[in-house]
Amino acid sequence: MSELAAKAQKLDGADELAAKRAEFVLDDVVYLDGNSLGALPAAVPGRVEDVVRRQWGELRIRSWTEGGWWTAPERIGDRIAPLVGAAAGQIVVGDSTSVGLFKALVGAVRLARPADSGRDEIVVDATTFPTDGYIAGSAARMTGCTLRPVTPSEVPGVLGDRTAAVLLNHVDYRTGRLHDLPSLTAAVHAAGAPVVWDLCHSAGALPVGLDEHGVDLAVGCTYKYLNGGPGSPAFLYVRADLQDRFDSPLPGWNSHAEPFGMRPEYEPAAGAVRGRVGTPDILSMLALEAALEVWDGVTVDAVRAKSLALTDFFLECVEEYVPAGRVECVTPRAHAERGSQVALRCPDAGDVMGRLIERGVVGDFRHPDVLRFGFTPLYVGFADVERAARVLAEVLA
Amino acid sequence: MSELAAKAQKLDGADELAAKRAEFVLDDVVYLDGNSLGALPAAVPGRVEDVVRRQWGELRIRSWTEGGWWTAPERIGDRIAPLVGAAAGQIVVGDSTSVGLFKALVGAVRLARPADSGRDEIVVDATTFPTDGYIAGSAARMTGCTLRPVTPSEVPGVLGDRTAAVLLNHVDYRTGRLHDLPSLTAAVHAAGAPVVWDLCHSAGALPVGLDEHGVDLAVGCTYKYLNGGPGSPAFLYVRADLQDRFDSPLPGWNSHAEPFGMRPEYEPAAGAVRGRVGTPDILSMLALEAALEVWDGVTVDAVRAKSLALTDFFLECVEEYVPAGRVECVTPRAHAERGSQVALRCPDAGDVMGRLIERGVVGDFRHPDVLRFGFTPLYVGFADVERAARVLAEVLA
Repeated sequence: MSELAAKAQKLDGADELAAKRAEFVLDDVVYLDGNSLGALPAAVPGRVEDVVRRQWGELRIRSWTEGGWWTAPERIGDRIAPLVGAAAGQIVVGDSTSVGLFKALVGAVRLARPADSGRDEIVVDATTFPTDGYIAGSAARMTGCTLRPVTPSEVPGVLGDRTAAVLLNHVDYRTGRLHDLPSLTAAVHAAGAPVVWDLCHSAGALPVGLDEHGVDLAVGCTYKYLNGGPGSPAFLYVRADLQDRFDSPLPGWNSHAEPFGMRPEYEPAAGAVRGRVGTPDILSMLALEAALEVWDGVTVDAVRAKSLALTDFFLECVEEYVPAGRVECVTPRAHAERGSQVALRCPDAGDVMGRLIERGVVGDFRHPDVLRFGFTPLYVGFADVERAARVLAEVLA
Repeated sequence: MSELAAKAQKLDGADELAAKRAEFVLDDVVYLDGNSLGALPAAVPGRVEDVVRRQWGELRIRSWTEGGWWTAPERIGDRIAPLVGAAAGQIVVGDSTSVGLFKALVGAVRLARPADSGRDEIVVDATTFPTDGYIAGSAARMTGCTLRPVTPSEVPGVLGDRTAAVLLNHVDYRTGRLHDLPSLTAAVHAAGAPVVWDLCHSAGALPVGLDEHGVDLAVGCTYKYLNGGPGSPAFLYVRADLQDRFDSPLPGWNSHAEPFGMRPEYEPAAGAVRGRVGTPDILSMLALEAALEVWDGVTVDAVRAKSLALTDFFLECVEEYVPAGRVECVTPRAHAERGSQVALRCPDAGDVMGRLIERGVVGDFRHPDVLRFGFTPLYVGFADVERAARVLAEVLA
């Protein structure tokens, strides 16, 4: 056994989260793509079967009330809340991340901007996942703002009296760089504007501290580190003290104060429910609820500690196994700047990833030259990491 | 056997759609709430289990390409197309009806209104399902328009040079009244504006003829007469010749011409795909795909013929069994004005529906005084209808 394989064995033996792996459906593949689609939690298939066969098939319409379907968006939001440092009553689940970003960003502009405030710029992370920029462009256009795309490090320098709202990504989807949420949030607030954080690549991977850091609004997806399943609904956080001024651009009947009153005039509900829109997609939503049970007894701090240990160890193995110069790590080495993935640049990344997958190591390829490996502490172990680096070295040789 | 029971037996014997009932999971309940949540098609549970256990659990991320997940919104849209009289390539599935209405209505205003056109009014059906009005209000506010709510019969009279777009419901959710889509569409077009039709209560229940009547945009839900399951995704129709000018207010990455190019600039895809937004909710979407298989070999004309026969027979039975004056039918008697439901007004409707449900006849109650009975020709038979009216009479006695 190589020195690194022995080290992996030792690390796995001391891993307090190791037992969680048994709560997922896994095989012999090293699955390092949980930052794109989380693995299947073992509790999900049975739950979904119950939702389909009994709740839909037998109870039918009665499940909307008796089966808890109607209140699922806020109930599941409360289940996610502690994972992102939020007290209950501030998160609802529903819609896609893109739709959630539109609600949050238009809502943020409306919070910031009473008439004649002169705040007419939406600042957005130019390096962000593209949909954030596209949606920010639409939000700007529809609120009479100008879009100002800058890199996250340039954000503090462009904030001012014209800033209407800021949309930032907590972790860069490509490089895995973790941005400084507390200091950027404080900088936006100092300029008198609200900030929207996109938590797609941090929710379930590391501490977010929404309440602690006074974040205004946030949106995240649930199919990555929260393992909710393909296209499972996004979540929307609106800080409690902003909820009564949150003015959604998508005021569907589910966000009405009296949804079954069928009133022609819109009167928004109080609380997080105001972030709902239309009828929730129950199958995806209740699959997510079952998936969240794997978090019982797990702290995000423990997940973060293991995540950093996994990515540290992966970098160590890559350095040891892969010929020097063959790949370039674009993920920061500093813990404070690293999410839960490692991105390696290499010129033939598309081909390399294809061969890795053939050999049972699943990461993904991001155009044009990035190999992306996500480390999900609930089901990835250190032996997986050593094997992934070893196979990568063999493929690159 | 009563005369009407004998008539029911005869009608059931001659029903060419009778065999379709076996393709649903049903019990002894008379389920007349399929206009709210369609019954479970028997093909769905197995399909969902495959999606969860194999596609997600085993193939994981590979299913996005190899399993056909990525193209599901347009593939399923094409499956729905013939049911609403649309050629392929004009419908995508995704998001909730409310979100779909926002896309369609803002898109319609933008189609209608080059700069300085003076078109600044959105006309909306004031008797519509409330979410349509709420969303129309938001669309008006965000496009600088005024909302003009009128009854459908008043629509032709208010159209003119100021009309930017019109949002109408094909069938009124409360009364079951079917509006005249061809003539209203023609009237809106004569005023130089586009029309958006809400097909929630007509798709799968009666012929719509989107292409034939030149409808511009349409949105419908899939969990009523299309039996897609609770909160299954909505569909969006954009007529082929308008697609290259369709300018969505929700330009998520799924509607980009090159979604995996990860480009910072938004370039909309050609075709129906332009109506997509974010990552589709695969579990709900593929359950819907399985549910649509019940339409194999079924024509919408046959469904419509049976639907009218069912509602005619229900009215006949109610007239025969229920003491005169105890209920008032608010659904039009004329076939050309009737959808696939019958709404009866009675002062104690909430209590009455509770007692009907206890006795195995499931309809629903709409505030403040409406008993609503939906007739879904694929699984409701004439004996069900006779029983429902008989139990209603007993409850009302």
